[in-house]
Amino acid sequence: MLERVDAKTTVADLMAEIGRKARAAAQPLSIASPDRKTAALIAMAEAIERREAEILDANRKDVASGEASGMSAAMLDRLKLDEKRVAGIAESIRTIAALTDPVGSVIAEWDRPNGLHIERVRTPLGVVGVIYESRPNVTADAGALCLKSGNSVILRGGSDSAHSSHAIHGALIEGLEAAGLPRDAIQLVPTTDRAAVGEMLKGLDGNLDVIIPRGGKSLVARVQAEARVPIFAHLEGLCHLYIDASADLAMARKIAVNAKMRRTGVCGAAETLLVDRGIAPADLLPLLNDLSAAGCEIRAEADVAGIFANAKPAKEEDWSTEYLDAIISVRLVDGITGAIDHINRYSSHHTEAVIAEDPKVVDRFFNEIDSAILLHNASTQFADGGEFGMGAEIGIATGKMHARGPVGVEQLTSFKYRVRGNGQTRP
Amino acid sequence: MLERVDAKTTVADLMAEIGRKARAAAQPLSIASPDRKTAALIAMAEAIERREAEILDANRKDVASGEASGMSAAMLDRLKLDEKRVAGIAESIRTIAALTDPVGSVIAEWDRPNGLHIERVRTPLGVVGVIYESRPNVTADAGALCLKSGNSVILRGGSDSAHSSHAIHGALIEGLEAAGLPRDAIQLVPTTDRAAVGEMLKGLDGNLDVIIPRGGKSLVARVQAEARVPIFAHLEGLCHLYIDASADLAMARKIAVNAKMRRTGVCGAAETLLVDRGIAPADLLPLLNDLSAAGCEIRAEADVAGIFANAKPAKEEDWSTEYLDAIISVRLVDGITGAIDHINRYSSHHTEAVIAEDPKVVDRFFNEIDSAILLHNASTQFADGGEFGMGAEIGIATGKMHARGPVGVEQLTSFKYRVRGNGQTRP
Repeated sequence: MLERVDAKTTVADLMAEIGRKARAAAQPLSIASPDRKTAALIAMAEAIERREAEILDANRKDVASGEASGMSAAMLDRLKLDEKRVAGIAESIRTIAALTDPVGSVIAEWDRPNGLHIERVRTPLGVVGVIYESRPNVTADAGALCLKSGNSVILRGGSDSAHSSHAIHGALIEGLEAAGLPRDAIQLVPTTDRAAVGEMLKGLDGNLDVIIPRGGKSLVARVQAEARVPIFAHLEGLCHLYIDASADLAMARKIAVNAKMRRTGVCGAAETLLVDRGIAPADLLPLLNDLSAAGCEIRAEADVAGIFANAKPAKEEDWSTEYLDAIISVRLVDGITGAIDHINRYSSHHTEAVIAEDPKVVDRFFNEIDSAILLHNASTQFADGGEFGMGAEIGIATGKMHARGPVGVEQLTSFKYRVRGNGQTRP
Repeated sequence: MLERVDAKTTVADLMAEIGRKARAAAQPLSIASPDRKTAALIAMAEAIERREAEILDANRKDVASGEASGMSAAMLDRLKLDEKRVAGIAESIRTIAALTDPVGSVIAEWDRPNGLHIERVRTPLGVVGVIYESRPNVTADAGALCLKSGNSVILRGGSDSAHSSHAIHGALIEGLEAAGLPRDAIQLVPTTDRAAVGEMLKGLDGNLDVIIPRGGKSLVARVQAEARVPIFAHLEGLCHLYIDASADLAMARKIAVNAKMRRTGVCGAAETLLVDRGIAPADLLPLLNDLSAAGCEIRAEADVAGIFANAKPAKEEDWSTEYLDAIISVRLVDGITGAIDHINRYSSHHTEAVIAEDPKVVDRFFNEIDSAILLHNASTQFADGGEFGMGAEIGIATGKMHARGPVGVEQLTSFKYRVRGNGQTRP
């Protein structure tokens, strides 16, 4: 099953062949009917369930290797599957099966004075490459989302989860074949040689249209630095929560604790709390106490320490640190102008939220900050494709080209124009 | 005015500084009101008119240099300005001023069961680079389109039109300043050193978000091969016209002549005519006679030569040649399946048209061909942003990322999400 390919030239040849097969599969896939794609996805979910024992066996091998190599508890938790998680993988595929098929949907249409009727309709992108680390469920989610959007996909999972991904991939292939779709529509790179990633970053001779990296900052940074094809990604989620003097403070307390502490390891977790200097210390203190009581360390400058004695001193680097942990940096700012200045300087342009009742403050926050997601009176932790109603997402993008924010099936499409006439020639 | 910069390091420094200024101008520009941008554009149009003599003087220098260096008549015609063309430049800016401002417009909005209201709204892209050749009007069109869409732009015109572009650029700056917008919003690279293009292709340290090349195939090919930033472009327009057996033949004759001969040098001109083998020779002959009578050379294989004796023999390379001239390649194909196979093999994915009355044929043409623009019963020469009702375009893109087809003000934008809540926290 898993091949070790040693010579660089062999990896290059292998990846070039994978690229050609993916491109060849993209054409029949692009015109596959919605029903056929749905049938394939349902067959995949059933195959996942039927192959539960095989998937768990494979996963045990990965977990044993991880334990032997001293993998952290957090990483092991991401890697480990059980009956419930396998059922969750199947359920996730069914959710994607139930989404509206984006291909062929009319995004916009209009008539011209000469009688031409113009439609802008969604088309698949072509071939998507997904490079990910230890979560084996990405194999299924990415495969299913790409199929739904009519794209071929090349999956390059981490070596940590190689056995699990291979077993899950087998179920996906079974679904494709049951529906009469080409098995090359979802390919799993069969080697853990890192040179395979290098080949993908070079674009597989034009046979790879976009790369989506899913994983830690070092993986995403490498892909961003080296990829010769477009990428949909975010390097980090340095998300801000700003509490204006006009805020409903009870709401602010609830949202601050949720934005930071609901899950500290997700990209939508708040990392910096900006507080309007116009808020009285006696009003700010309960909010900081709430965070502290929830287990959060507070890092701040002297002005905040004067209000909340247990604050640890914040250094300059704290304003640009994505903790992904129970730590928050807190700064007093001069109203919305100060908040905008701070965010435009330090943000990773992922997600920011404002708590305010003054509509002028909200308007300025919405207009003058250019991050993928801006929220008013809601938690930053809603930065998620499922929460946006997109059904499922393959990640969140902070770039401005093509996809931005949650990347769901619609964001995995391009478009073309269909123009209907009745004999028009151009004067 | 025009500096010669000799040391490579100096060009790199100069371009890095231009990039930083463009990025700094992008922020105020992104929040400039629609009225302010419109006022700037109208002031630009007035400045163009007021500076007519200066612009024509500058253009005479370029034309004199071009004549002295043996520039072709076609190139000289593109370069040369007169009173009417200068008036046309001002008029084009006024047309862009009158377009709906795309920034802040809501593309989509929906409600979630938890009460969150989500809007997807247009934002500027940031900094656009335009690399072009001898047409001086591109300076004004690109500057105006980027301003309307809230983007900073770095213009790198050809050395052939350097004096003309500089004079036009002066009018654009006057308009920016009259409206209180930063003059760095529209910068013209002040050197004709080709190293400046190389610096732009490297992305100016992250200060260039997209490059739009406007010019001949060699320029576009270089940009496509070397750019480390996204590009909106088409390398060529190898456009096909397919005439099905179900076609209204009178319509087909009119459209074929228009698609090929209205203007042979535009990217939407038809280069290959595909004819359903089911059309009787006696029905095809008048169409080929029409093309021939309009001055078009016909290149075809033996089967067509048996119908139209004056056909020249077509070689394999004819099917992949963009003539941009009064030449067309003609091939008989086995109905819509044969047409699709030919187009998917040879097309540059720019524009294709089908002439047919059978709706099943039209559906297959529309579904199974993945080119930016597909037309039914209309001429390929409608492949143009103005004809699509976009007001003006900066070019046509054949890539699938972000922009495809005509690139107008909307295609020069990205988007962000604005989410309005009333205290929601994520469970």
